[in-house]
Amino acid sequence: MTRGFYIGRFQPFHDGHREMTDRIAEEVDEVVVGIGSAGASHTVRNPFTAGERIMMLTRVLDELDKQTYVVPIEDIDRNSVWVGHIQSMAPAFDVAYSNNPLVVRLFEEAGIEVRQSEMYNRGDLKGSRIRSRMIEGKEWEPLVPDAVADVIDEIDGLERLRRIAGDDGDDATENDH
Amino acid sequence: MTRGFYIGRFQPFHDGHREMTDRIAEEVDEVVVGIGSAGASHTVRNPFTAGERIMMLTRVLDELDKQTYVVPIEDIDRNSVWVGHIQSMAPAFDVAYSNNPLVVRLFEEAGIEVRQSEMYNRGDLKGSRIRSRMIEGKEWEPLVPDAVADVIDEIDGLERLRRIAGDDGDDATENDH
Amino acid sequence: MTRGFYIGRFQPFHDGHREMTDRIAEEVDEVVVGIGSAGASHTVRNPFTAGERIMMLTRVLDELDKQTYVVPIEDIDRNSVWVGHIQSMAPAFDVAYSNNPLVVRLFEEAGIEVRQSEMYNRGDLKGSRIRSRMIEGKEWEPLVPDAVADVIDEIDGLERLRRIAGDDGDDATENDH
Amino acid sequence: MTRGFYIGRFQPFHDGHREMTDRIAEEVDEVVVGIGSAGASHTVRNPFTAGERIMMLTRVLDELDKQTYVVPIEDIDRNSVWVGHIQSMAPAFDVAYSNNPLVVRLFEEAGIEVRQSEMYNRGDLKGSRIRSRMIEGKEWEPLVPDAVADVIDEIDGLERLRRIAGDDGDDATENDH
Amino acid sequence: MTRGFYIGRFQPFHDGHREMTDRIAEEVDEVVVGIGSAGASHTVRNPFTAGERIMMLTRVLDELDKQTYVVPIEDIDRNSVWVGHIQSMAPAFDVAYSNNPLVVRLFEEAGIEVRQSEMYNRGDLKGSRIRSRMIEGKEWEPLVPDAVADVIDEIDGLERLRRIAGDDGDDATENDH
Amino acid sequence: MTRGFYIGRFQPFHDGHREMTDRIAEEVDEVVVGIGSAGASHTVRNPFTAGERIMMLTRVLDELDKQTYVVPIEDIDRNSVWVGHIQSMAPAFDVAYSNNPLVVRLFEEAGIEVRQSEMYNRGDLKGSRIRSRMIEGKEWEPLVPDAVADVIDEIDGLERLRRIAGDDGDDATENDH
Repeated sequence: MTRGFYIGRFQPFHDGHREMTDRIAEEVDEVVVGIGSAGASHTVRNPFTAGERIMMLTRVLDELDKQTYVVPIEDIDRNSVWVGHIQSMAPAFDVAYSNNPLVVRLFEEAGIEVRQSEMYNRGDLKGSRIRSRMIEGKEWEPLVPDAVADVIDEIDGLERLRRIAGDDGDDATENDH
Repeated sequence: MTRGFYIGRFQPFHDGHREMTDRIAEEVDEVVVGIGSAGASHTVRNPFTAGERIMMLTRVLDELDKQTYVVPIEDIDRNSVWVGHIQSMAPAFDVAYSNNPLVVRLFEEAGIEVRQSEMYNRGDLKGSRIRSRMIEGKEWEPLVPDAVADVIDEIDGLERLRRIAGDDGDDATENDH
Repeated sequence: MTRGFYIGRFQPFHDGHREMTDRIAEEVDEVVVGIGSAGASHTVRNPFTAGERIMMLTRVLDELDKQTYVVPIEDIDRNSVWVGHIQSMAPAFDVAYSNNPLVVRLFEEAGIEVRQSEMYNRGDLKGSRIRSRMIEGKEWEPLVPDAVADVIDEIDGLERLRRIAGDDGDDATENDH
Repeated sequence: MTRGFYIGRFQPFHDGHREMTDRIAEEVDEVVVGIGSAGASHTVRNPFTAGERIMMLTRVLDELDKQTYVVPIEDIDRNSVWVGHIQSMAPAFDVAYSNNPLVVRLFEEAGIEVRQSEMYNRGDLKGSRIRSRMIEGKEWEPLVPDAVADVIDEIDGLERLRRIAGDDGDDATENDH
Repeated sequence: MTRGFYIGRFQPFHDGHREMTDRIAEEVDEVVVGIGSAGASHTVRNPFTAGERIMMLTRVLDELDKQTYVVPIEDIDRNSVWVGHIQSMAPAFDVAYSNNPLVVRLFEEAGIEVRQSEMYNRGDLKGSRIRSRMIEGKEWEPLVPDAVADVIDEIDGLERLRRIAGDDGDDATENDH
Repeated sequence: MTRGFYIGRFQPFHDGHREMTDRIAEEVDEVVVGIGSAGASHTVRNPFTAGERIMMLTRVLDELDKQTYVVPIEDIDRNSVWVGHIQSMAPAFDVAYSNNPLVVRLFEEAGIEVRQSEMYNRGDLKGSRIRSRMIEGKEWEPLVPDAVADVIDEIDGLERLRRIAGDDGDDATENDH
């Protein structure tokens, strides 16, 4: 039995992420997906809470015919213990999937096998680009699974992101908490 | 659609917990189970990691015919924001299940419905008692679901708990980290 | 101009505390009162939030004819920087009032003058005793200023304390968060 | 009885802030002012300690004929529990005043009424601009209440800000702590 | 080249610890000594700061003819990443020395060799016992290396410990910070 | 007896730092070197762990004929208690050496003597420049003590830095933890 681990912030989970989980599901028996920066929310970079992202992922991953685990991971802000943190919060895994150089390096220094891959359609499928489109009122739904668009609709996520991204003029830096 | 929330430390998940999740599953459409003190492990009170407890719960809850979510929750050590912490980490829920007076009070002050219940067979079904039996070499497997006993066996959990509970004599308080 | 500093947890602020602030007000021009463990609440030892305790102290100290400051102080859990923490959170002060040996020592090592005093009526006037009386349904109002009793009434504090102190039987240690 | 809440970092408290507190005092019975980022100090963005800012605000707010509370609020770095954090540290309030989009959104998601306002004379009355003028040796005293200028003078705040803003050449990034 | 790691709180470093470091020095080429709970000080259990303990250990270990490293280690309060924390803060080591069951288990689960030993003269040589003798005014100097007694004398450590251990009567629990 | 304190991040320790420690050793009897941001590692700005940096410094400082102490210092992220933090973690010192304006100011406000100096050869001897040269494959060894180059070689530090600095294209911001 082989278990694969894949981590992302999933702000939001999009078609590129799904392609990745589909591929991992072909290679391993069980898939563990870690939701990074689980404690972050309500910012332009991290608009959705961990709970909201669990909803997105669970609905999408239910379509896979493999056992999956969705695990929120709070930041630990210390790279030297990050892998140990992941290992304690997630079911034991045999191989990690990532294209992020730091993540790859940290897993490798810990002696864990890492597999990298070509991500498809990079230009369109970046979380930052999708969030920008959401803020600017452009079409973004085709870039994410339907279940994700449903969750964002249910939680009024579009309005939240636009409001947070709002400009309050000269006093912005003064009144922030 | 109604979603119920139930939190425990599940060190380990036992038949009393399962009775509780069975009952909740009868009352709501989806069940969210929070694993409390997710960052704690390797102590007599909290021997198992969050990842190990996710394994226990997932295998048991898969037997329910309801959608379930298993969510590790790290301690936040501030009661006044504890409910907000839970709400951000878990999918939105309508009712919380707990018999713990503090948990009940915190949810109630936050305006969330709480349901309490009679737990069955209290004398035998306490985590502390099960851990004591594990340490003392007494029979404990009949008190937990088979899937839980399997996980504890796979992770060599019995040996870990016994070793941690070991007496190192007079110097115990001096060398601890 | 002389400013005096006095710190306590004030769970709740009682007549012994008031006697102390009265005495300090006689000796200095301005009184700074620090509310310790400001982040703690909803426990038997620390039932009231910082905001609730600010209400108690402000109403009582308004009766003094001296300028007063009420400053919540979150725990920093490191004795070696505790005085520096206090000094950064509170207006500058010339003398500290305390009977607690650790507090006295920390201020003295930092080169700050400390004044100690006999507290009156010790037997009755301890926070722990007042909380016990509240839980047990005994008379406690005569031991605190009227304004404090008013605040506790407004926030339904008696019910909170009793509920938190409640016994949930065998499962108490298992379900706590 | 209505209580209003207003939060800022007040680095330093200036005439724009005073205009805001004046307006709030007209609308509510009691005014709670939260000092944000209370733990920050000795940086160009946050030069003054919480204790120093308490001095500034207390002296200015004493001129109002309303009961006021000045409450330092340490950062909690988790937006999802920020409102709960505020609510536990401050006396209970009915309405929050803010022009910051994130603050507005967080209060609204928590079901708290928020009032926004036109701030006057934006160009001149920004904390960042006042701090720049202080560093550059330009006139800044007319932009803050006299009591604030007095406090900054008493604590030698101008010298602190200038020194911290100093250039140490190429090695700046290497020796910083 | 072999490097050995030994951790303790060293409150204070005593003859039993020295016997241990002497033994380790016989077995390895370089000795790394970790000072645990480095952030704790000014309590009966942890009276001395990390800096003070560094002084004690450095003076004693200088007598060894091996290269030694003295490394303060702040608590991380999460057993699952404790070994990774140690490994990032200390020079790389090949073998760990400990008699503490938890420490032994954590190193073993991380795949690191652990050596345990008989400690001599347990009855007398416990930190807790030495601290009790210091508080009670009994002879303690013969139980620690001379250099340690010198450091404690230089920092007025005896007086600190006695003062902190002092009884302040009924109000002790009320005034503590 | 005079003890001097010098703090830096030492990413890596280079010839400019050595010139500084040489000069300090001429002025004081004992030298305490604090390793700042001890918990940081595996980033382009902070590639090396505290343990690795302890190795670098210990080997270089052994060449001095003065007693030296190498003390890792974790960030405390609160300037107002930073000096107290340093003082608790390091052996007591009489004078601090720094060219960083903030460090100088913090020590001065705490009443500690600070000595500043001209650093030599600024253009070449900056940590950021040395790290850039390492990433770009340019010669960097002549800018650091031989012992430092040895440590970086032993820990495969060049490869770590290059890998971490790697570009993963469009998805970099999405997959980071």
